[in-house]
Formats: sequence, C-alpha cells, structure tokens
Amino acid sequence: VKISVLGAGAWGTALAQMLCDGKNEVTLWGHDPLRLAELAKSRRNGLYLPGVDLSPLLQVEPDLPRAVATPDLVLMAVPSRAFRDISSRLSGYSGIVVSATKGIEPVTGFTMCDILAQTAAGARTAALSGPTLAFEVARGVPTAITAASRDDATAALVQKLFHRPHFRVYTSSDLQGVELGGALKNVIAIAAGVCDGLGFGDNSKAALVTRGLTEIRRLGVAAGARPDTFSGLSGLGDLMVTCFSKLSRNRGFGERLGRGEKIEAILAGAKSVVEGHPTARSAHELAGKLGVETPIITEIHAALYQSKNPAHALRDLTARESKAE
Amino acid sequence: VKISVLGAGAWGTALAQMLCDGKNEVTLWGHDPLRLAELAKSRRNGLYLPGVDLSPLLQVEPDLPRAVATPDLVLMAVPSRAFRDISSRLSGYSGIVVSATKGIEPVTGFTMCDILAQTAAGARTAALSGPTLAFEVARGVPTAITAASRDDATAALVQKLFHRPHFRVYTSSDLQGVELGGALKNVIAIAAGVCDGLGFGDNSKAALVTRGLTEIRRLGVAAGARPDTFSGLSGLGDLMVTCFSKLSRNRGFGERLGRGEKIEAILAGAKSVVEGHPTARSAHELAGKLGVETPIITEIHAALYQSKNPAHALRDLTARESKAE
Repeated sequence: VKISVLGAGAWGTALAQMLCDGKNEVTLWGHDPLRLAELAKSRRNGLYLPGVDLSPLLQVEPDLPRAVATPDLVLMAVPSRAFRDISSRLSGYSGIVVSATKGIEPVTGFTMCDILAQTAAGARTAALSGPTLAFEVARGVPTAITAASRDDATAALVQKLFHRPHFRVYTSSDLQGVELGGALKNVIAIAAGVCDGLGFGDNSKAALVTRGLTEIRRLGVAAGARPDTFSGLSGLGDLMVTCFSKLSRNRGFGERLGRGEKIEAILAGAKSVVEGHPTARSAHELAGKLGVETPIITEIHAALYQSKNPAHALRDLTARESKAE
Repeated sequence: VKISVLGAGAWGTALAQMLCDGKNEVTLWGHDPLRLAELAKSRRNGLYLPGVDLSPLLQVEPDLPRAVATPDLVLMAVPSRAFRDISSRLSGYSGIVVSATKGIEPVTGFTMCDILAQTAAGARTAALSGPTLAFEVARGVPTAITAASRDDATAALVQKLFHRPHFRVYTSSDLQGVELGGALKNVIAIAAGVCDGLGFGDNSKAALVTRGLTEIRRLGVAAGARPDTFSGLSGLGDLMVTCFSKLSRNRGFGERLGRGEKIEAILAGAKSVVEGHPTARSAHELAGKLGVETPIITEIHAALYQSKNPAHALRDLTARESKAE
C-alpha cells in the first residue's frame, strides 16, 4: 500500500515510522525542506523524536503536490491551523484520508473530518485518536488507539492497515465523538498543567480531570456525539495520558502557565504546536453556539485570551463548583 | 462535636488532623498502644505521615471501649480485614458511623457499610471516598471527596461536618457505587503498577485503566450500583489518582510485582496495608457469584493467588482484548 504522511512533527514521524514494515511504501512530507533533507540524511528526527532511529525504508518528499499525487492512503498529521489549507490539495483525491490531527476549526466549529468533507469530498475519511504519546509509539511501547469513520468499511480498512502487535487498533462509528474527545482533552490538559504548576497535588488534579471528562462529554453530546464514546480510549484514555504524563506538551504548557510564565514566551519557545491553545478558543465558541456550560474551558479561555491570571482562573473554577453543590 | 477516629494509619491520622479545627473534640484510636503513645508525645505520625505536625488538640485513646463510649460520630479508618471485628464494638451505638475504609469482605462480598448494617445496626452510616492521597490531605492540598449514604440527611450531615475550604465534600445517595468504586480501583491500580514495573509506558497504562473503569462499572452495576457513580470523584477520580500517582501504595505494590519481586517479600516489608491484595480475591469471588466478566481482576487474582507470572497475566489480558475485538 502506498501511504503519504503529511506532517513531519513527532506524531507524523512516529506513525510514518510504524507504517514502514516492508509491506507499505511510506513517504513523509513536511513543510520545512531543510529539516526534511536533514531527516533523510541522518535517519533521525532529532527535534521531535530524539534517539529514535528511523527506518531506511522511509522516504521523504519535500514537494506537496508530488506527495499527494498517487498514494492509496494519505495520513494527515499537520497542525490543525494548517489542516484546511493542506487538505485542499486533496480536492480531486478519491483514496483514503486519515486524520491524526486533534483540533477544532475556529468560527466553523468543524472537526478535521468535517473539513475533509469540504476539501477532499471524494475521499473516504477516518480519524485516528487515543492515548498515544508519539515518543512511546516511536519506541514500540504497546499502544491502543481508535480508528473512527462514519463508514464501517473504511474504519475496518484503516484498522487492518495500522494494526500491529504493539499498536492495537479498535474501531468506532462515532467519528464526531472520537474527534471531539481528542481535541477537547487538550484544553483540560492545560488546566491540569496549571494545577501542577501552582503546586497543587494529585488529589486536586484528579478532581479537576474527573470534571473535565464530564464537561467534554456534555459538549460532545450537544455536538452530536454519543456519550459512551467519551468513556473509551479516545475519550477517557487520551484524557488521562494527556493530563498525567510528564511527556504531554499541553499539560506542560499549562504547568509553565501555572508557574507564572507568559503565554507568548512559552509559545515562542515551543518546538511543537500546543493544540490546546487554539482549541480553547474554538471550543469556547462551540460551547457558546450550542449553549453548553463548560466551566473549565471557559476559565482556560479567559486565562489564554482575556489576560486572566491562571491561578485566579483555577480558584474561580473551584468556587463555581462549590456553588453548584 | 465529639468524634472518634478508629485507625491511626495514614488516612485515619490525616482525617483526624483535619477534623481538629477547634470546633470538634477529636480522639484517635489505634491498635498499637506504643505507637499511639509515641504519636501523642511527638505530635507526629512519623511512620505514615512523615514531616506533618499534628494538632495539639488531637487526643489519643489506646482503649477501644473508651474510644467508642461517647462520641457523636465514629470514623472508621481501619484495614478492611479488621473492620467487622472492630465495628462490632459499636453494636449498641446510635450515633453516626462513617467508613473511610476501602474494601470488600471475603465470602460475603459485603462493603464496609454492609458490615455496619450488621455490626452497628442502630447507627446512621455513610462512606467517605474519593481521590484523596492521605499525605496530601494532611498537608492541606485542595481535595474533593464524596460522602455517600442511603439516607440523604446523614450524607448532608457528614458533608457539613467534614467540609473545609481545602476539603470539599459532595454527597451521593449511591452508597453501593461509591464503596465499590473505592474498593475495586485498588485492584486496577495493582495492574497499572505491574504495567509500570514491566517498563511499559503511559500509553499502555492509559488503555489499561480505561478498560479498568469499564470493568469496575460492569461489576458495580451488577451489584446494584448506579452506572453514573463510576464517572464521578469516587469512581474515575479515585481510579486516576491511584493508578497515576507516585504516592499510591497499591500502584507501588504492583510496580514491584512487575519488576519481579515476590508478593510475600513486598507485603512483609510494607508499612501500610495494601488493600488491593485482599480485594482482588473478594472482587474475583463477587464477579463469579454475579456472573460478570472481569478480565483485569481475573488476571490480577491469578497473579496474586495462583502463582501466575505478572508479566504473563498482563500479556494474556492484552491477548484477550485483541480477541474480543
């Protein structure tokens, strides 16, 4: 199978690497030709996956039109803000497009597969989402993930293509629930990180994350998802790993916020996109549009976009909970 | 209010300390008179809560009959295996008994409040459960917990007596669900610890714990609990903290198992009771009695009581999941 992976960040590279098993022909495209040439030469992605040796079978292609010209499957692992633009190159494409990107488009409130329905209308689409730290996948740590599609045959095909002994793929037909779970957990992870940064303990964080899942489910169900999806790998599973792992970048971003660092300074120094940052804004918009109460998203939105002190945001969250009691 | 706390381990001492706010008269009883005398003298519980200064208002009482003679409220924080014996001293008692013990009685499958219905039939009973590492509570870290009782007035009274700015108490009428969530999560935490001890990563653990919550919910509902209870503080919240915190002793026990240490050696050296160890057996019995499939509990039971290699138990768990797919 000919596969093109678009996006040479941690997640795109880890998935491309995993797909290089001799049976597939895997090409990795990234937006930075210099970094891509360096990756091809060193067989390393030193910036995102330090210490991981990449397969000699992995090909790189700096030219986007060429990368999307002939594959059977395109795997999108680009930042959500670039998703519409890059996927618009697939307008005439009739193969499979799998989104590994977790985000919500501003203004439209679209998930990535919602965008694909416009930009790659002729393609069969699916999303891959679950508790999957890229670095662990690249190192072959046992991982489980969900492949979701509105079309069962597409979900089953993606499962077949991605399943490995150390990478178990389950299927779901609740595309909306799987995509929203993956996107929204990054906002809760920022709140969990603020909790860490303020020196609160695991008791506080567990209480916060518990309420976070309730909030994700409430918003997701209002947006058309099935409630049970949020109790699975792509909901609870992904939320836990993102809120508790030291390796999670959204949690790490929140931790630095909680310690008093400035948003702009953290983002300027970040090597990876912190998807929870734009998602806080689009999730807040979506909640407003659907008339859903989302206390954690509201407070994180205020901390990120209305200059609210993160410590005050967390304090107000607690006060709000006590009042609700 | 006169309160007697039975059990001078980490959790009993932390709760006794928290209750000493000047408005209550708090007495702590423990089974070891020498340790109790040392605690009274040093104002420290060096074994369980190192570095925490205890209130000068905290009284100690080495005599159990005297400890339970006149209180308005008895807080039980003894190991589950001693619960029936010690609570039988409350046979004529008509005040409030709150259980902070997390376990399931062997053979009967009783929760701690089920036992109280027999041993302290005249008392009003409630359970306190949630994501509450004792050491964090003793240090005043913000914590949230659930007070559950079949009687709403009792739950509300316990909430009122225990609520503090840094210790928020919510109420539930699903006593069975709150108690089973608190007991069963310790078995899942052992599995999570084995996962850690084998060097698996956070992806694996998140997938395991996600399935663990589904399993707890399935068994709990079969035993008469409400499904939503397991999505709350005393279900998901407690499960997360126990499976992810470095401070959790059940997770720590599992981690050492996963590294290849012998059960007997770990237990012999443990200063605290590892409640997940007996609970694995009584939960396994309960699941059998109710005809509920509990793959994780079954494998941990086999590792603890049938000499199964913990690594094989975890491997078989994964194989079973793949087959179910």
